[in-house]
Amino acid sequence: MINHKLYIHNSLTRQKELFTPIEPGRIGMYVCGPTVYNDVHLGNCRTFTNFDIIYRLLVYLGYKVRYVRNITDVGHLLDNGEDRLAKGARLNQIEPMEVAQKYTVGFHEMMRILNNLPPNIEPRATGHIIEQIELTEKILENGYAYVQDGSVYFSTLDFIKENPNIYGQLSGRVVEELLAESRENLKNQDTKKHPSDFALWIKADDTHIMQWNSPWSLGFPGWHLECSAMSTKYLGEKFDIHGGGLDLKFPHHENEIAQNYGGCNSQPANYWIHANMLQLNGKKMSKSDGNYIMPYELFAGENPLISKGYSPMTLRFLTLQSHYRSTLDLNDEALAAAEKGYLRLMDAAKLVQTISSPLAAGGTLDPEINQLLTEILEDLCDDFNVPKSLSKFFELATKINGYANGQIEPNAISQDAIERIKTAFNEIVFGVFGLLDESGTNGSSASLDLIMDLIIDIRAKSRENKDWGTSDKIRDTLANAKIQIMDGKEGTSWKKL
Amino acid sequence: MINHKLYIHNSLTRQKELFTPIEPGRIGMYVCGPTVYNDVHLGNCRTFTNFDIIYRLLVYLGYKVRYVRNITDVGHLLDNGEDRLAKGARLNQIEPMEVAQKYTVGFHEMMRILNNLPPNIEPRATGHIIEQIELTEKILENGYAYVQDGSVYFSTLDFIKENPNIYGQLSGRVVEELLAESRENLKNQDTKKHPSDFALWIKADDTHIMQWNSPWSLGFPGWHLECSAMSTKYLGEKFDIHGGGLDLKFPHHENEIAQNYGGCNSQPANYWIHANMLQLNGKKMSKSDGNYIMPYELFAGENPLISKGYSPMTLRFLTLQSHYRSTLDLNDEALAAAEKGYLRLMDAAKLVQTISSPLAAGGTLDPEINQLLTEILEDLCDDFNVPKSLSKFFELATKINGYANGQIEPNAISQDAIERIKTAFNEIVFGVFGLLDESGTNGSSASLDLIMDLIIDIRAKSRENKDWGTSDKIRDTLANAKIQIMDGKEGTSWKKL
Repeated sequence: MINHKLYIHNSLTRQKELFTPIEPGRIGMYVCGPTVYNDVHLGNCRTFTNFDIIYRLLVYLGYKVRYVRNITDVGHLLDNGEDRLAKGARLNQIEPMEVAQKYTVGFHEMMRILNNLPPNIEPRATGHIIEQIELTEKILENGYAYVQDGSVYFSTLDFIKENPNIYGQLSGRVVEELLAESRENLKNQDTKKHPSDFALWIKADDTHIMQWNSPWSLGFPGWHLECSAMSTKYLGEKFDIHGGGLDLKFPHHENEIAQNYGGCNSQPANYWIHANMLQLNGKKMSKSDGNYIMPYELFAGENPLISKGYSPMTLRFLTLQSHYRSTLDLNDEALAAAEKGYLRLMDAAKLVQTISSPLAAGGTLDPEINQLLTEILEDLCDDFNVPKSLSKFFELATKINGYANGQIEPNAISQDAIERIKTAFNEIVFGVFGLLDESGTNGSSASLDLIMDLIIDIRAKSRENKDWGTSDKIRDTLANAKIQIMDGKEGTSWKKL
Repeated sequence: MINHKLYIHNSLTRQKELFTPIEPGRIGMYVCGPTVYNDVHLGNCRTFTNFDIIYRLLVYLGYKVRYVRNITDVGHLLDNGEDRLAKGARLNQIEPMEVAQKYTVGFHEMMRILNNLPPNIEPRATGHIIEQIELTEKILENGYAYVQDGSVYFSTLDFIKENPNIYGQLSGRVVEELLAESRENLKNQDTKKHPSDFALWIKADDTHIMQWNSPWSLGFPGWHLECSAMSTKYLGEKFDIHGGGLDLKFPHHENEIAQNYGGCNSQPANYWIHANMLQLNGKKMSKSDGNYIMPYELFAGENPLISKGYSPMTLRFLTLQSHYRSTLDLNDEALAAAEKGYLRLMDAAKLVQTISSPLAAGGTLDPEINQLLTEILEDLCDDFNVPKSLSKFFELATKINGYANGQIEPNAISQDAIERIKTAFNEIVFGVFGLLDESGTNGSSASLDLIMDLIIDIRAKSRENKDWGTSDKIRDTLANAKIQIMDGKEGTSWKKL
């Protein structure tokens, strides 16, 4: 039973719309996945974390979601017309599928570190050559493609003639502009009839190491084709949500839509969602400019652009702090602030487990708390406004802290309200936001808990006995161990910094 | 540069043979991977851990290895002729690729927990339908297969006539016996000309949800075909090593060889390696008999057949203790012994980092130590005799312990010998055996180290001051925290139990 109305900003209509699934209670969602010819970069991490949170929210709302995210292991054309994966393989002198496997493993590992859930289906482009050939045959039959020298091209002019309002609708560009742009990008692909045409199937030259038999040539599929073929196979000709990074809007998604119309006469997805880009220090990330950080460098602090290492959950928290449709700027200051915010939120999550109220229900602050909890969900259902809902959790954290340290009186918050807050932390902060408490994810933490209790005892006793040598030593060691002791109303507690 | 001769027991010849790669310095190895229609079981874990150790040793010896392990996501026939994956999907009412993804993710997670390295290429059966169709076409052209009602069958009689000494060579069964066995297994597959024939391509009935177009029918490949097609694609028609569980010898590998001969007139692999089975309490594992433990139950201790939980590295250590060609019996006693052995080995690995010798070289025990180190490698190169080499590490551990506690005099072992032992632990115990020190794999361990130093100081001081209250409290807390303190010659150390 779905109890909440969900509003999604649809890139296709440029409007926020009430979400209505095709089949009640079920959602089919396709997200364009990584090209596995290189290490996953921070921009990918942001995009996939944003869609992970969307996926988690949809499931939380009660939908049965089929989340498909592909692996592009063939077909991404470089400017010189050489396949990206084939190029990587030649440089490393290894088989292209060995390159793909290396970076697929690395991608999965990074998704795991960031606590992004695996999709329900993760199809590979090389695993769906038959489906891509069949779609190309359909597009040819329908008259929207032509064969030239063993390659097959999508005929944009023929498509535009028959479907005047489709091509350009997503990217919002007028047809003339698109045609002009495509002309610039033409380069060596002079077998095409028109510059704006794009390849569905490419005849491989002799040196090209990834190739399959097809009715037209030994070759390989064009870049855009896989997503049309695989989304249709696993979600049907028409499904609910199609997502991807903003950089894919054109030409990738525009051409994908054209292919789906060309093959099945259907706009594939009812709602298109585009996640905005990540910047570094206010500029586009760029290896050649040195304005570049790899995820592992970020975690290890091994990059001159940052003052220290930031944990995976700090990175995730930074992602949460920005709306998916806004640009997110990554910089040392923002990361330091995110780290602080993340730790404060985790402290609140722990603290709420320890507090209790003498009052069963009806605390004076209860209405305010319930209002915040209601708004958290409303924010999330308002085009996935994670940063807004996150800010409400900090308002809750302030109340929890005040309650724990006695600044808020015991009867102001009832046990009922405390339980609701606990549930919200578990279901939203950990469940939907997908945060992990990094201080608690390791095997030693149980031992450390016990030993810290002992240290706190010994510290109290040594102070009592004016044994300053011992208490100083404890203070220094804990500083080295990055453990902070806090004396409060409820006794002494500690946390890892 | 490969400096060590390697001997492998070749299942094909039933003899231990000197290993000679096809291309000097390079090895192509194909291992039959999991069928992803169910959770990975402990037998799989043993098999894949054995091949992981083989892979790690080959790399350690200096070979450039291409290790291919497939994912079977289609084509495994149930008795009733229904595809296993399709069946799982119908029960769960989900798409077959959704089932495959779920169990592929679970399989990868288990491999990661057991510290098995990912293979260099991990091809999926569904991702290689074209290659399987092409191989079927070749076998048909060569006269070893026939089409019947849209399905294609391998003709064992035609094959045996042309290649009298091939079919049956691997499994060691005489042809008459094979034909008789196959007759028994026939069941509903009455479209075959002869009972011993097996399907290369199967026409799908209307309800079968996994199907692809082919020259013969909408259908799906037979179970044995994928390994022939994918090993040929990624390793060539002839490669070095083919491995798998012993249960795959017949019919899977026997039929695989027939297919490779049928398509490429070639025995695919020069060396066949079969890993023996895992038993539970002296019997075959069986769900229906209740003689069954899942890996996660083993780790959590949630199964009446075991007295407590055993860690992933305890399971790995148990695997190391048995030769890959022997049956391994899993039981509570063996697991408890493995846990002890594993912890003792890890203690020795830590201890060897802390000891040092006043003598640069020429200790009286040095020749004995060097002999042990030489034998460790010889054992590993003698058909991967891991248990034998492991026992030598325990002889080294005894020496390290004796040296650390003063039972062995300082000049008996030189610094040179200590360094060699350190290297052997790093390269073999952690590198080739793939053991992880579980006490050190978590983020709190650095903090715990510092705090334990403090505790040890406070304990010493409290004993000095006859402050029995504090020292008793420390003792009790450490017992609860499962930390053991050891007073020795080199001072006090501690370890997690």
